[in-house]
Amino acid sequence: MFKELESAQVGATEALAAALDHLAYNDDGLVPAIAQQFDSGEVLTLAWMNRPAIEETLATGRVCYWSRSRQTLWRKGETSGHVQRLKELRIDCDGDSLLLLLDQTGPACHTGRPSCFYVRVEGDRVKVISEQLVDPTEVYGDEAPKAPEV
Amino acid sequence: MFKELESAQVGATEALAAALDHLAYNDDGLVPAIAQQFDSGEVLTLAWMNRPAIEETLATGRVCYWSRSRQTLWRKGETSGHVQRLKELRIDCDGDSLLLLLDQTGPACHTGRPSCFYVRVEGDRVKVISEQLVDPTEVYGDEAPKAPEV
Repeated sequence: MFKELESAQVGATEALAAALDHLAYNDDGLVPAIAQQFDSGEVLTLAWMNRPAIEETLATGRVCYWSRSRQTLWRKGETSGHVQRLKELRIDCDGDSLLLLLDQTGPACHTGRPSCFYVRVEGDRVKVISEQLVDPTEVYGDEAPKAPEV
Repeated sequence: MFKELESAQVGATEALAAALDHLAYNDDGLVPAIAQQFDSGEVLTLAWMNRPAIEETLATGRVCYWSRSRQTLWRKGETSGHVQRLKELRIDCDGDSLLLLLDQTGPACHTGRPSCFYVRVEGDRVKVISEQLVDPTEVYGDEAPKAPEV
């Protein structure tokens, strides 16, 4: 189906259900999903979705991923309150990745930083480039994640 | 190593080589890499890199991925001329994905569109939202990709 859309004109449509059928899920049934703040354009995180996560996100407008570490649906912000409200969901040319334009409440990263991409390569070093806006131990309490949700 | 950086102050550094050692490569030795136009913030594509692709990209300033379909290093634009010049490479909190801020020459997508994310969900349909800036058969000639480089 995505092959047919490659040469389609602007405005051409297909059924959503067919598109979700034809996504190129990996062996675990997942596709990577890029979370981008809709107005600033900041890339916040890369997470993973299965079909139920995509369907729930579209149905509720609140972003739900699949947690690979916990092997369960992961409603972003359910502990921290740092929810993501979906503005728009896009699919790439070959149906193997997603772009979520969304409105992030609070920091996106479990470390308390606005974005998960806070380590920059500079020459032969990598450097932390953003500060923690909140203390994760205050946000997550005893449930502070030992490892990020992945 | 990424665990230690979670609570680090802005400006804290580690060796690049150690960071590349500690990336959470998948079973195929790959990490997903988000390509974002450095000035407009447009997300262009999601591709994959192994360590040699990362090292070549950092050494040359020209973005090189790993082509999963061809199982070889893929110097973006080597056929089309639509190269990507790296501005900045960032690593996420748990070292399992990359963000490339870059300057894209021409369209990023093999279909001739500026971005690979040109299919938008609208209700129970998906819709093509951007037009082809170039004819891929003119760009790729007889080598026009049957499937995108993935």
